[in-house]
Amino acid sequence: MTKTVKKIGLLTSGGDAPGMNAAIRAVVRTCVYHNIECIGIYRGYQGMIEGDFETMDARSVNNIINRGGTILKSARSSEFRTKEGRQKAYQHLKNAGVDAFVVIGGDGSFTGAMIFNEEFDFPVMGIPGTIDNDIYGTTFTLGYDTALNTVVEAIDKIRDTASSHNRLFFVEVMGRDAGDIALNAGIGAGAEEILIPEEDLGLERLLESLESSRKRGKTSSIVVVAEGDKTAGKSVFELKEYVNENLPDYDVRVSVLGHMQRGGSPSCYDRVLASRMGVKAVETLLDGKSTYMVGVACDKMILTPLEDAVKGKSEIDQELLRVSDIVTI
Amino acid sequence: MTKTVKKIGLLTSGGDAPGMNAAIRAVVRTCVYHNIECIGIYRGYQGMIEGDFETMDARSVNNIINRGGTILKSARSSEFRTKEGRQKAYQHLKNAGVDAFVVIGGDGSFTGAMIFNEEFDFPVMGIPGTIDNDIYGTTFTLGYDTALNTVVEAIDKIRDTASSHNRLFFVEVMGRDAGDIALNAGIGAGAEEILIPEEDLGLERLLESLESSRKRGKTSSIVVVAEGDKTAGKSVFELKEYVNENLPDYDVRVSVLGHMQRGGSPSCYDRVLASRMGVKAVETLLDGKSTYMVGVACDKMILTPLEDAVKGKSEIDQELLRVSDIVTI
Amino acid sequence: MTKTVKKIGLLTSGGDAPGMNAAIRAVVRTCVYHNIECIGIYRGYQGMIEGDFETMDARSVNNIINRGGTILKSARSSEFRTKEGRQKAYQHLKNAGVDAFVVIGGDGSFTGAMIFNEEFDFPVMGIPGTIDNDIYGTTFTLGYDTALNTVVEAIDKIRDTASSHNRLFFVEVMGRDAGDIALNAGIGAGAEEILIPEEDLGLERLLESLESSRKRGKTSSIVVVAEGDKTAGKSVFELKEYVNENLPDYDVRVSVLGHMQRGGSPSCYDRVLASRMGVKAVETLLDGKSTYMVGVACDKMILTPLEDAVKGKSEIDQELLRVSDIVTI
Amino acid sequence: MTKTVKKIGLLTSGGDAPGMNAAIRAVVRTCVYHNIECIGIYRGYQGMIEGDFETMDARSVNNIINRGGTILKSARSSEFRTKEGRQKAYQHLKNAGVDAFVVIGGDGSFTGAMIFNEEFDFPVMGIPGTIDNDIYGTTFTLGYDTALNTVVEAIDKIRDTASSHNRLFFVEVMGRDAGDIALNAGIGAGAEEILIPEEDLGLERLLESLESSRKRGKTSSIVVVAEGDKTAGKSVFELKEYVNENLPDYDVRVSVLGHMQRGGSPSCYDRVLASRMGVKAVETLLDGKSTYMVGVACDKMILTPLEDAVKGKSEIDQELLRVSDIVTI
Repeated sequence: MTKTVKKIGLLTSGGDAPGMNAAIRAVVRTCVYHNIECIGIYRGYQGMIEGDFETMDARSVNNIINRGGTILKSARSSEFRTKEGRQKAYQHLKNAGVDAFVVIGGDGSFTGAMIFNEEFDFPVMGIPGTIDNDIYGTTFTLGYDTALNTVVEAIDKIRDTASSHNRLFFVEVMGRDAGDIALNAGIGAGAEEILIPEEDLGLERLLESLESSRKRGKTSSIVVVAEGDKTAGKSVFELKEYVNENLPDYDVRVSVLGHMQRGGSPSCYDRVLASRMGVKAVETLLDGKSTYMVGVACDKMILTPLEDAVKGKSEIDQELLRVSDIVTI
Repeated sequence: MTKTVKKIGLLTSGGDAPGMNAAIRAVVRTCVYHNIECIGIYRGYQGMIEGDFETMDARSVNNIINRGGTILKSARSSEFRTKEGRQKAYQHLKNAGVDAFVVIGGDGSFTGAMIFNEEFDFPVMGIPGTIDNDIYGTTFTLGYDTALNTVVEAIDKIRDTASSHNRLFFVEVMGRDAGDIALNAGIGAGAEEILIPEEDLGLERLLESLESSRKRGKTSSIVVVAEGDKTAGKSVFELKEYVNENLPDYDVRVSVLGHMQRGGSPSCYDRVLASRMGVKAVETLLDGKSTYMVGVACDKMILTPLEDAVKGKSEIDQELLRVSDIVTI
Repeated sequence: MTKTVKKIGLLTSGGDAPGMNAAIRAVVRTCVYHNIECIGIYRGYQGMIEGDFETMDARSVNNIINRGGTILKSARSSEFRTKEGRQKAYQHLKNAGVDAFVVIGGDGSFTGAMIFNEEFDFPVMGIPGTIDNDIYGTTFTLGYDTALNTVVEAIDKIRDTASSHNRLFFVEVMGRDAGDIALNAGIGAGAEEILIPEEDLGLERLLESLESSRKRGKTSSIVVVAEGDKTAGKSVFELKEYVNENLPDYDVRVSVLGHMQRGGSPSCYDRVLASRMGVKAVETLLDGKSTYMVGVACDKMILTPLEDAVKGKSEIDQELLRVSDIVTI
Repeated sequence: MTKTVKKIGLLTSGGDAPGMNAAIRAVVRTCVYHNIECIGIYRGYQGMIEGDFETMDARSVNNIINRGGTILKSARSSEFRTKEGRQKAYQHLKNAGVDAFVVIGGDGSFTGAMIFNEEFDFPVMGIPGTIDNDIYGTTFTLGYDTALNTVVEAIDKIRDTASSHNRLFFVEVMGRDAGDIALNAGIGAGAEEILIPEEDLGLERLLESLESSRKRGKTSSIVVVAEGDKTAGKSVFELKEYVNENLPDYDVRVSVLGHMQRGGSPSCYDRVLASRMGVKAVETLLDGKSTYMVGVACDKMILTPLEDAVKGKSEIDQELLRVSDIVTI
């Protein structure tokens, strides 16, 4: 692993997230800064298997820092889960003279990188890019801050309608396993109740809280529901039905925010975080280190072994749960 | 009808739309300007029946021009459809000394105003407030321009994801009977195909157009579907299934934008249009006229008898249909 | 002029405006639709003189409809004002087989096109692209609607500070000769007073109106000033000094919005207008017509001879002036 | 200090910042949650001196979490710098039964609180509300994250024009003593150079860096300049002149973003941070503690003695300076 890195491959993998392009730009420019080459790998591991490469220089990343999505595209690759697939990928990298790669993505992408590293003793680095903020080893993932703003702006709009019509809205936001988006956006949007996968509020407490907020004079309400929430095993539409039956004088609606949460121009925070992570990932490889994920903690760049990043579990913030109970009174 | 108006009632009715608050502000201030009183009526016709009134002055409408929704709230009222309900409403207006009212809303609201005018010879004026732009007698309704920007911004975000993953998205936008939002937002968002209630494209042409755009090298696509569209009698989710089966190499997703389309801070155009309509509505009453809807045509304020506004049908713009065929090539 | 057009040149000229890229996209795709070639000319007339051309197809305008600025760049060209310069330009067009061009820009750009047309009997068409909305022959110019939203959003932010600190803000917006942006954005932002080039309010009335709005309980105020305004021959900074001296208990500030007004992702309206104008410009050339500017009036595409577009004067809307007097009460 | 707190006063002081309303909401609701009273004090310390108080309950803070500015208004108070002024303020608080207060503001506001606490042994708490992020004892101040997004969005717009016209823009952003906004927004906006008060780049290096970025093919450039920067003792306008003379082929412009940076709807991060700080400030008082500023570090709430917060100096992040050198290559 101590052989010096001269040519770095770069790919985005898994679901796209705002800030991925800013990270791509930073990785490429850090390579230029250190006079090493950077090879863009298209469509994630699938493009690696197919040798879909392109040399990148400072100009190829001009004017992308403010754009959502990823110019390198992303794709899932079942073939990369096979030894044969990874062998093909390694051959392509070798032929292209690539001697290390940086992958921007989530858990699945990091697992692939770890296996690849073990099989071929190939230096790899990970940058956490996902709006779900569900990765161990970093306080914030790329795209998370932008997604929170997107969700809060959408709920602000829904609240205009809710309060004009004295309605109750169930708003489903992203987060299959993690309630971070729901909890933070719920507090930020002034939601009356927040339902997350990490804890089952229970139907009784939901009804109570809605009733009590109405008693306090609230004529409209927003309940933010994480995709992965299963309060009493019910979907957001079933919850609506349930409340309709039990609180008949409420006019209840559902809004599923959906895929728009993944896109959009990244927030300043995500652009800066992406820039810092891109620099750190490349310079870690140049230091002869490998198989780490770059993360941010206490506003500083830190390194976490990919293995821990994949195995570790990011916990929901108990203080935030308490804050949400208090401010939604 | 020639008795001079001294106190004007004001209500918002039907679905809320951005710009309603700006129109409320303009109506109130035009009353102040002409030294007549203005009475705010809460929750539409229901509030009229219950006498839920409040005197409004210039200050009660400070800092609302930029806010979505309606500070007067809105509600549907089945009771106002009965003679008894309208009788109660009339009594409350009489007791309060209100001798005319302005209603901001859509077709249903105008129908109610017409009947009320016929029964009690009570001066009324209508201001078209709905995002659907489906009202005869005005080129643009209040909230329509804002909704178009909201939809286009949402689809811009979805496109980031679509192009990063080479996906096809069906995006459902509002418009039960009118395709205006779908057609204009579809052109504005650069959609590959647009499905509206006014014409059934047919499944074959949909598949053809998707295939041909792929042949032209497009790796991702957006199809904008109006709520009221019934291509081959299929819902947006059924369309997705159909395309999934017939174009298996497409990764197809659905996004229903939903209620956020109704809210948000109004665009400058909607704020100015609302201001102009509010002034015109009040001054028309002061001229001794009644039972008109204020509208805009050729960038000038015009009056249309409420009866025509309700009966007339706003047509889809054939030139726009052609433009969309050309620019989506 | 009746020889059929087979290859169309396209350039943007003068100050950039949101929607120019959407118009470029529409012109290119309309050419593709009609199976004729389109040549992009970079940096306006200067690039025409230097033969800085590039063939454009449907793909070269992918994903630009939502972007501000112009991918063809723009520049002023003193050389094009000389016969020699235009002769060079003509030679380059001839060599490239270009037999007509569409220029997106303002008065100056159209004047250049007219002269070029007279000298070389060369078919030309103009598309009005400028945020100032100061062109005769169209109700709205490309970029104007977007600029209004940009200005209104900026003033909404400034009002937060103004009302928190009971301040008076003079906000300078673009518009050297035309008050359209100031008047519409001023109404849209709920400004207490609006100063435009078309009429000199006079210092006395300015002070009066500020005093009376304070008497009505307004503790903060926004005065929108068009760049070209010369109330009593004073600049916005001189106006601030004057008010400081004469209304000492006001805390007066100045904010010059500046160049950000020219940029940003175009509004839906500008994107659709650009698409319509692009289609119309190309199809007018294909009809064997020339030397017209495409415009919109009564929500329909119209043609105005370039000569009239250049000579004509777009007037300020008297109704709007009156509306602003009423709603700012 | 151990007497239990039963009624808490609340004020905003100094320059307003997005998130102040969210903090007000949180303080009020935390009081309600703990069954103690909350008294709103208008116009900062000046209102304290004048006894401009109002009792606040959960409803008085409905629908403010998303609004910029401060509903309690803010003002500077020279009178509070005098013993007599503070004596008056104390008397008003005593008469109203207020036995502690929370002040949302910056250094100056905290100094006032400290002196007041020493003179009258009166429990006080501080919440850092300022966009400048220049307060010791917290990684982020309220409003900073929102201001960064506002600045980056504005520069994104300016870049559209810059790149369409191959221009160089000097963009002045807020930050009299601290370069945090300039450095982070500069990185986020992809600026070619960033000038901050903490270090004088020097005119030579500025010219070099502009020349070298041009040599690398960059045809347009953005230089972000903090208000407080004094590169070679020059203002942003003098810098423009200097570059104009020394790099004549550059078309140089200046844009001063100004007061809009202080306003606008707070970002999700600022809304959540404000909620957390509001809860922490009240509960710290209820714990019998006083004279602390609430802050965030390592994503947790922390307390810093007001004295340290005022005396301490927040340093510019050296890692970020390095990142900006690398990514702007």
